[in-house]
Amino acid sequence: MPGVPRTIEWVGDIDGHVALIDQTLLPGELSIIHCHDVASLDHAIRTLQVRGAPAIGIAAAMGAVLGVRDARNDTCEVFLSKLEAVCDRLAASRPTAVNLCWALDRIKARAREDHGSVSATLAALLDEARRIRDEDAAMCRAIGAFGMGLIQPNFGLLTHCNAGGLATAEYGTALAPMYAAHEAGVAFRVFVDETRPLLQGSRLTAWELNEAGIDVTVLCDNMAARLMQSGQVDLVITGADRIAANGDVANKIGTYGLALLAAAHQVPMYVAAPHSTFDLSLSDGSTIPIEERDPQEIRQGFGRLTVPPGVACYCPAFDVTPARLIRGLITDRGLIEPVGQDTIRRVLSRPDGPCPDT
Amino acid sequence: MPGVPRTIEWVGDIDGHVALIDQTLLPGELSIIHCHDVASLDHAIRTLQVRGAPAIGIAAAMGAVLGVRDARNDTCEVFLSKLEAVCDRLAASRPTAVNLCWALDRIKARAREDHGSVSATLAALLDEARRIRDEDAAMCRAIGAFGMGLIQPNFGLLTHCNAGGLATAEYGTALAPMYAAHEAGVAFRVFVDETRPLLQGSRLTAWELNEAGIDVTVLCDNMAARLMQSGQVDLVITGADRIAANGDVANKIGTYGLALLAAAHQVPMYVAAPHSTFDLSLSDGSTIPIEERDPQEIRQGFGRLTVPPGVACYCPAFDVTPARLIRGLITDRGLIEPVGQDTIRRVLSRPDGPCPDT
Repeated sequence: MPGVPRTIEWVGDIDGHVALIDQTLLPGELSIIHCHDVASLDHAIRTLQVRGAPAIGIAAAMGAVLGVRDARNDTCEVFLSKLEAVCDRLAASRPTAVNLCWALDRIKARAREDHGSVSATLAALLDEARRIRDEDAAMCRAIGAFGMGLIQPNFGLLTHCNAGGLATAEYGTALAPMYAAHEAGVAFRVFVDETRPLLQGSRLTAWELNEAGIDVTVLCDNMAARLMQSGQVDLVITGADRIAANGDVANKIGTYGLALLAAAHQVPMYVAAPHSTFDLSLSDGSTIPIEERDPQEIRQGFGRLTVPPGVACYCPAFDVTPARLIRGLITDRGLIEPVGQDTIRRVLSRPDGPCPDT
Repeated sequence: MPGVPRTIEWVGDIDGHVALIDQTLLPGELSIIHCHDVASLDHAIRTLQVRGAPAIGIAAAMGAVLGVRDARNDTCEVFLSKLEAVCDRLAASRPTAVNLCWALDRIKARAREDHGSVSATLAALLDEARRIRDEDAAMCRAIGAFGMGLIQPNFGLLTHCNAGGLATAEYGTALAPMYAAHEAGVAFRVFVDETRPLLQGSRLTAWELNEAGIDVTVLCDNMAARLMQSGQVDLVITGADRIAANGDVANKIGTYGLALLAAAHQVPMYVAAPHSTFDLSLSDGSTIPIEERDPQEIRQGFGRLTVPPGVACYCPAFDVTPARLIRGLITDRGLIEPVGQDTIRRVLSRPDGPCPDT
């Protein structure tokens, strides 16, 4: 996103390092972590210093390069075997993040091509890691270009959690249309749910929008209905973790409730995601597994115990919003509206190509 | 509520003191504060050690007695003038709590009656303060008796904030039917929203239900929709801060959203409140003023800064739920169902009398 360092990037040549924003310190402190070896990068993923599925994928790809560059004088066989071990280590850092394995598979596939020498192979791996980052940034920009037209001057927007630049290479998914509209000079206001239990909305989304100079206001999750009732919300945009073939959307807990509130107030709700988030093998959202998180996130989220000892907590990390509550899907291949199996297949089958004029 | 000390009570005779549960330390610690003078009681109200409109009213009435008992050897005129000053001080402790002024007015009216001597007047004031407490407890028990029939065996209930024993003399309003059903041996399960920003649901409601041996589970406010979608909620019961003549309900922020979610899932929603909560001078809820709270409650609720410096917060303390979303009102004078101007007037005009058999 504009105005702040990149979420994650490779600095310098093959002997350089990975620089990433420490997201655990936001919003209090903007600190860059410099990872010169795979151990420090592995640690950054495990401790959520870098989070968001696309950003984790980029981190893992760059981490694989860090992990094998000292093997550039080894034989090809030794090099590939070291790469395998490094990838296994990184794949275990956040076992549920799909993009992580996908990115490591791309790195391994590139390594198996014939590059003529181990040191050329190593250079190709850095190229691949940077390409993964650049492709993600391009997808986000395309989402922004396809979605920015939804944002009219003086609109009030509402978003949930962080589907922003901090979760991706830059620009994000749900926030990409906002950044694009802002760059085009459209004035609007963004409200963001704080998003309990981990507060990615207030800690991360509010931070990155504010840094970009966009007017942002934080509210508690339970205030969204009153905000809509007061007429201050014209449009809801969220991200997605997985989208089924019929358009049902799995996303951060609270998204489904927000969709019901938006419907009750005739506020259109859009979901932004790259084509890679669609899982066309699922006919609908009913079979998407919903992860239950550690109740400690509710009990003691900010240091102080806020739930009595011995009392149970219900802590689903995601929910599923039925397609009928979603006005449209904003993808890097175009806007899908109305949402349905046919429109989804048609838009997703488009080749990657130029975005609409921005 | 059963199993724990009374929220607030006068201990001993006129030379005794006020004992109250320090609600700021819950759920980590159950600590009783002993107030021997008006200064410590005034402090307890101002710092939310005692909170909830009915409980504050009781505290203020008892505080007035503490404030004037040293004047028992003064002339009647001096005594009444000291009482006036003490009441003014207490009335300023939480200026928005209606019950506070109402309770102090009762104390002052009782003092103006002819009791024969100053020391008899003082005794009458203690009697009045205890009566305010006992009447509140009786109203809560009546709400419990009229509402308990709504709770069927193995029901899943959902409540919001704390409309429990800690907010009243005992038993509470929304929680009173639960305590009554529990005492009658009905097995059920209660879910409670944590209720950002001040977490009265997780800190207070979960604590008192758990102490009473009722099965309780805490969830974040944004998880209620998924909980209902999963079929685990049969009934929603909340309290109220003010109810208009047509049945529109002002209550803790989040109640309106919960009502919309309940309607979307065909889950009946009831609101429990004593007759004193109805404001029949308001034809509907549109003119109920909504207090905006200090954004610091969102920014730094638990020690750590969770909103970026310079970012605005939206922090309404209450919202208004339209009567059409409420299946019924549970009052100390009977169940009001369906909710409308006529049914409300009819039930509220009943004299106080015996409750249904419990």
